[in-house]
Amino acid sequence: MSAFSRFTPLASALPSTVPFVGPEAIERQRGLKVEARIGANENGFGPAPSVIAAMREQAGDIWKYNDPENYALREALATHLGVTPANIAVGGGIDELLGQIVRLVIEPGGTVVTSFGAYPTFNFHVNGFGGRLVTAPYAGDREDLDALLDAVKRENAPLVYFANPDNPMGSWWDADKIVAFARALPETCLMILDEAYSETGPASALPSIESLIDLPNIVRTRTFSKAYGLAGARVGYVISTPGTAQAFDKIRNHFGMNRLATVAALAALKDQAYLSEVIGKIHAARNRIADIARANGLQPLVSATNFVAVDAGRDGAHARAIVDGLMEHGVFIRMPGVAPLNRCIRVSVGPEADMARLEEALPLVLKKLA
Amino acid sequence: MSAFSRFTPLASALPSTVPFVGPEAIERQRGLKVEARIGANENGFGPAPSVIAAMREQAGDIWKYNDPENYALREALATHLGVTPANIAVGGGIDELLGQIVRLVIEPGGTVVTSFGAYPTFNFHVNGFGGRLVTAPYAGDREDLDALLDAVKRENAPLVYFANPDNPMGSWWDADKIVAFARALPETCLMILDEAYSETGPASALPSIESLIDLPNIVRTRTFSKAYGLAGARVGYVISTPGTAQAFDKIRNHFGMNRLATVAALAALKDQAYLSEVIGKIHAARNRIADIARANGLQPLVSATNFVAVDAGRDGAHARAIVDGLMEHGVFIRMPGVAPLNRCIRVSVGPEADMARLEEALPLVLKKLA
Repeated sequence: MSAFSRFTPLASALPSTVPFVGPEAIERQRGLKVEARIGANENGFGPAPSVIAAMREQAGDIWKYNDPENYALREALATHLGVTPANIAVGGGIDELLGQIVRLVIEPGGTVVTSFGAYPTFNFHVNGFGGRLVTAPYAGDREDLDALLDAVKRENAPLVYFANPDNPMGSWWDADKIVAFARALPETCLMILDEAYSETGPASALPSIESLIDLPNIVRTRTFSKAYGLAGARVGYVISTPGTAQAFDKIRNHFGMNRLATVAALAALKDQAYLSEVIGKIHAARNRIADIARANGLQPLVSATNFVAVDAGRDGAHARAIVDGLMEHGVFIRMPGVAPLNRCIRVSVGPEADMARLEEALPLVLKKLA
Repeated sequence: MSAFSRFTPLASALPSTVPFVGPEAIERQRGLKVEARIGANENGFGPAPSVIAAMREQAGDIWKYNDPENYALREALATHLGVTPANIAVGGGIDELLGQIVRLVIEPGGTVVTSFGAYPTFNFHVNGFGGRLVTAPYAGDREDLDALLDAVKRENAPLVYFANPDNPMGSWWDADKIVAFARALPETCLMILDEAYSETGPASALPSIESLIDLPNIVRTRTFSKAYGLAGARVGYVISTPGTAQAFDKIRNHFGMNRLATVAALAALKDQAYLSEVIGKIHAARNRIADIARANGLQPLVSATNFVAVDAGRDGAHARAIVDGLMEHGVFIRMPGVAPLNRCIRVSVGPEADMARLEEALPLVLKKLA
């Protein structure tokens, strides 16, 4: 296939095929229809009615670029978090922010430490900038803080990724362990503390803002995609020191934010009552998924996120067969990518109709596989 | 200010202050209110009612990620343009796509050819990836195709940027000249043919799709931000060979598109009747701006875009004083950044209320400056 002949050596060496397969692609490829969309850790309870109303009301303003400084959103987040707007940088979801962080820190050949089997999109960005991934295995289905710290020191790595709560396992560490890890890091290593699931975990898992805000090498990433139900809007943000947060201005696409996404995020932040309500629904749905798993002889892992990893008891091929089999019944779920995590399937929370469909389909799939 | 100590040398060397000042920032900094938003080449006529209706209707789906393959939009664009979906890559506006192109082609120190005074966001991306800008001056307020080609050959440059119609001058070259330039380029040089304003120029200025679609080193960039009135949505696309278009998959943020932005673009593409109507309004507003300029002793340049560059007859300081003076009256406009282009002010089209406000304010500002 004819492509331009002079892409950079790095770009030329990157694969053109990527592992990002959306449910729409599965539908197209397999000729199936997704009836229960509980695979991408979206939030099927949706955003607050006030959020949808705000987007509808301001849809006519879509001809205007969004404020490139994201002033109103940074102000609102700062007030919400008890920091200053200078502590905040806004981007198109954590995915975009991860790419920016890698670009700011990693030159070709630079070392990046992460857990083996952690967030694939982060690895995609590391590869995309020519970084070298050094991984530490999960221990007991949790990211292994000691091993990560050892790897950082051994490799003199400038970047480490750590998600708390974790994806894909749903596990977590308590705040004091996170803070101890952050403070033990060499200051020459930037830590991405990915808190995409911060709203759905136990309070004890979330370090206070104050506990880390003075550290220029800690970047906490958060999102409106999960608990706030705005995955399709693409709004994420980082919390760090003003100096580190300002570095994003050097490279970010200043006119990159969708205007209605900002409207949605602002409205979502205002409606904390709805957020509490949704978090309650997420907790209930986690229990529902766990009950369904147990009823089918599978072992749900305790989760601090909006999904549940369920140990299917065998290997990756078996879990894959369950994932594929459920899709035959219109139930879209996913699974971790590597062993030993891939003995699990990963089921996102959703409204009762989705849960009921899972409940109906899972025994049929398991029976067929038996 | 405390920042992380180990950003890459390139990132460390980049300025934290950037030239992207939105009208909202001007309002905040100067304590003024924008009453006529005619400075950012947005389209104040707005998108089609059918587009707004589609966004409102599907706002509730915002909890779902957008299809990472942008399948429906690429299909629709392919049908509209008479190419295949494989010829299309979609991104968050041309701004994002420009960053991706630079990243694919430019290593630190790599040479990029552009016109002196052309699109600043492109230069921002070139600087951001450590590229070296080599510029050719405008000739007769048009980008100088011969000089650009000479510079590419002299420098053995891997990348050249050319906008047709041009921003900030509104000028253009006829299609045959563009095609001749593209075919004369060494195949080791990728040409960005930025066609953000393709819908508002004369038909003779737009090379046919067939005339360039076989060239892997030509990337045409287009957007829904201008004629389609969707600047705040952030939807742009490239047209190239399948091989070159697929290269974007190597590095793009696959879950980066806003879901409602895709909804809006699809609806906009369907409503070509509205597009024709708006283009008529844009042409009329260009004439209105030109009349206002002449009535005030200023010289409008002929425009193929949704804005008019107006020669204010003196230097950049004088044009700047007009820009600043108009803002005192709530009229937000911009101006080119470098001499000799900066003898001009740049006024975007807008509804009659905006034009009337300009008509009222401009003589007052000029009188005060006289």
